[in-house]
Amino acid sequence: MKEKREKKEMKVTPWNVSGKIDYEKLIREFGVSKINEELLERIKKHTKELHFMLKRNVFFSHRDLNWILNEYEKGNKFFLYTGRAPSGKVHLGHMMPWVFTKWLQDKFNAELWFQFPDEEKFLFKQDLKFDDVQKSLKDNMLDVIAVGFNPKKTYFLVDTVHANLMYKEACKVAKKITFSMVKASFGLNENSNIGEIFYTSMQTVPAFLPSILKKKNIPCLIPYAIDQDPHFRLTRDILPKLGYYKPASIQCSFLPPLNGVSGKMSSSEQYSIFTTDSPKEVETKIKKYAFSGGRDSIEEHRKKGGNPDIDVSFQYLRMLFEPNDEKLKKIYEEYKSGTMLTSELKMILIEKINAFLKEHQRKRKLAEKQVGKFLNWDK
Amino acid sequence: MKEKREKKEMKVTPWNVSGKIDYEKLIREFGVSKINEELLERIKKHTKELHFMLKRNVFFSHRDLNWILNEYEKGNKFFLYTGRAPSGKVHLGHMMPWVFTKWLQDKFNAELWFQFPDEEKFLFKQDLKFDDVQKSLKDNMLDVIAVGFNPKKTYFLVDTVHANLMYKEACKVAKKITFSMVKASFGLNENSNIGEIFYTSMQTVPAFLPSILKKKNIPCLIPYAIDQDPHFRLTRDILPKLGYYKPASIQCSFLPPLNGVSGKMSSSEQYSIFTTDSPKEVETKIKKYAFSGGRDSIEEHRKKGGNPDIDVSFQYLRMLFEPNDEKLKKIYEEYKSGTMLTSELKMILIEKINAFLKEHQRKRKLAEKQVGKFLNWDK
Repeated sequence: MKEKREKKEMKVTPWNVSGKIDYEKLIREFGVSKINEELLERIKKHTKELHFMLKRNVFFSHRDLNWILNEYEKGNKFFLYTGRAPSGKVHLGHMMPWVFTKWLQDKFNAELWFQFPDEEKFLFKQDLKFDDVQKSLKDNMLDVIAVGFNPKKTYFLVDTVHANLMYKEACKVAKKITFSMVKASFGLNENSNIGEIFYTSMQTVPAFLPSILKKKNIPCLIPYAIDQDPHFRLTRDILPKLGYYKPASIQCSFLPPLNGVSGKMSSSEQYSIFTTDSPKEVETKIKKYAFSGGRDSIEEHRKKGGNPDIDVSFQYLRMLFEPNDEKLKKIYEEYKSGTMLTSELKMILIEKINAFLKEHQRKRKLAEKQVGKFLNWDK
Repeated sequence: MKEKREKKEMKVTPWNVSGKIDYEKLIREFGVSKINEELLERIKKHTKELHFMLKRNVFFSHRDLNWILNEYEKGNKFFLYTGRAPSGKVHLGHMMPWVFTKWLQDKFNAELWFQFPDEEKFLFKQDLKFDDVQKSLKDNMLDVIAVGFNPKKTYFLVDTVHANLMYKEACKVAKKITFSMVKASFGLNENSNIGEIFYTSMQTVPAFLPSILKKKNIPCLIPYAIDQDPHFRLTRDILPKLGYYKPASIQCSFLPPLNGVSGKMSSSEQYSIFTTDSPKEVETKIKKYAFSGGRDSIEEHRKKGGNPDIDVSFQYLRMLFEPNDEKLKKIYEEYKSGTMLTSELKMILIEKINAFLKEHQRKRKLAEKQVGKFLNWDK
C-alpha cells in the first residue's frame, strides 16, 4: 500500500491547515455540534431531499441549526452569509461549500450575502499587492457567479468598495474585541501588523449588515469550511452585544489536496485542480498526483482490493462529484474488492471533473456580463 | 501669590495631557526642531508678515519646514492637513491651531484637507455611542467652517463617510505598523480594543490621500497641537515606504485651562470656554475661574506687581486674542508693575473673547448652509 500519511501535528487556523485532520478533535476543541440523524430529518422536512454533502458528513457540524429552523418555521426567514478572500485562482476545494450554499439558497429561498474581503490576503501576505488582489477579485467573482446563485437574491460585498457601509460597523465590533482575544483566537502576536489585528471585525460585519440595511433583526446562517471557525466564534460572541441574533453556522470538512488526505487543497500548491484547468491538465494531474489507495501491483490489487477511504480520487467523488449514492456505493465496493483498478477509478473521476468544469467554464464565461447584477443591490 | 501649580508628572499623549508642560523636554523627547529666527525670516519672505502665534512661540517647533519651503520655492505647492475628532463642543483650545491654519491657507493659497475621524472617540471612550458622535460632528463642522477656511480649497474628510476612499489606504498603512509599534507610541496594551489599535492608520491617510486622488506626489504640511505627535511621527515613518513624501509639520503649545497653566483646555472640564458660550457665561467663567498671577491684596499688587507669565488671562491674550504686539507689551508691563489690576486685565480679556465669539457665532450660524460645499469635493 502506497500510504504515506503525514505524521505532523494537525494545525487548523484561518491561515494554515496542515497535518492529518482529526474532525472529532476539532468538534471538541471548537465546541461545534455534530449533525445527527434527527437534525437531518428535520432539515429534510423543509428541503424534501437531503444534499449528499449532508448525508455523507461532508458538512458535519453546526451551531444553532435547530434554533434557526425554529425561527424559519415561525416565518422568520434567515439569510446566508459566506465569502472568499480573493487571491489566486479558485480551486475545487473552494467550490465545495459554495455548491452546498447554492443548494441552501434554493431550498430555503434565502438571500445570500457573499463577502469578498479584498484586504485580508493583502494584510496577511507580505509580498501581495492590492493590484494583484484586484485581478483575483474579478476572476474569483466569475467562479462564484458560475455556481449559479440567484442574482436577484445574492449580494456581493467587497470590503474596500463597500467600506462606507462596513467600516463604521466594523468599529462597533472592534470596540468589543481586545488584542488578547485575537491573539488567542488567531495566533497573532506583537509583531503582527495592526491591519491583521483589526481584520476579523470586517469579517463579522456581513453577519449583521442586512439587519442594519433592512432595519430589523434577521437571523443569519453561515456555511463555511471549519478553518474559518475562529472568526465566526468571535462573531457569535459579539453580535448579541450589538443587539443582533447570534448567527447559526454549518461547517464542512476540507477537500484534500491531490497528494493525500492530510491538510486541504490550497491555491499555493501544485496539488490542486483549478476551475480554469483544461481537460488535459485535469487528466494529467489526477493520473500523476492523485494519491491512490490501491495496491503496488495489479495482481495484488485484484487479490486484496484497494482502500477507498484514503484514496483521493474516491474522496473527490464522495465529497463533490458523484451525487448518486447507489453509483458511489458501487464504486466503493468494486474498488475495495479489487474489481476496480486505480486507473479505472481515476478515469471515472477525470470524466466527472471535466464534465463539471466544462459546464462551469461555460457559465464562467457568461458570468462576465453578470457581475454588475451581483454588485448592484437595488434588486 | 495664589500660585498652586500642579506638581504631577507631565503626560502628553493624544488622549491625555496633564501636569506642567515642559516644552523643552517635549522637543527633545519627540525629536522636533525649534522654530528659530532664521526660519521665521524665511517664512516671512513668502507671507510678508508673521502671524503672532509664530512670533510668540505659540507654534514653537516643526519638522522639515525648510524642505517644504524649498519645494514651495521650486513651484511644488503643498497642501495642509489637520483635523478634529468630533466629540462634545469646540472650545478655544481647539480654535487656536485652526486660526493659524487658516492663515497658512491664505498666505500659501493652499488646499486644506480637514479630517473628522468620527470613529476615534467612539473607539477610545467606553460609553460613547456613534449617535452622540454624529451630533458632535455636525456641530463641530460649523465651528471649523466659521474659522473662515476657503470653501473652494477646503475638503472635509469624515472617516466613516469617506471610508470607501480611506479604508483601503489605511490597510496599506496598517501593513507597515506592528502592535509593538503602537504599543510603544500610544501606550496601548493587550486589553486595548482592536479598533484603538488600528485607528492610527486612518489618521495617516489624509497625509497622502490627495496625492492618490490627483495621481501625483504632493508635499503635505500638518499643523497640530503637540499631543498629536505620536500619530504623525508614525505617519512620517510610513509615507516614504508607500512612495510618498515624508510630511512636514508644525506644532503648537496648548491653550491652558482656566484654572492654571498646567495641562490643556479640555472639553470634559468646566475650566473651558466653548465657542457657543454667551457673553455672560464668558464673563462669569473668566471672573470666577481664570487663574490669576496677581497678589493677594490690591495694596500688595500695586507695590510688588503681578506675574503675567502664570496669569491665564494674560496667556489667552498672548496666545489667541491680542494680535497687536505693542498693546500686548503694554498690558504685560502694566500688569507686571502693578499698575494694572487682575480685575482690569480680566475685563480686557472678557471683551476680546466676547467680540471674537460674537463674530464667530454669526459665522457659525451662516455655516449651517455651507456644510455641503465643504463635503462636496467637485470644487
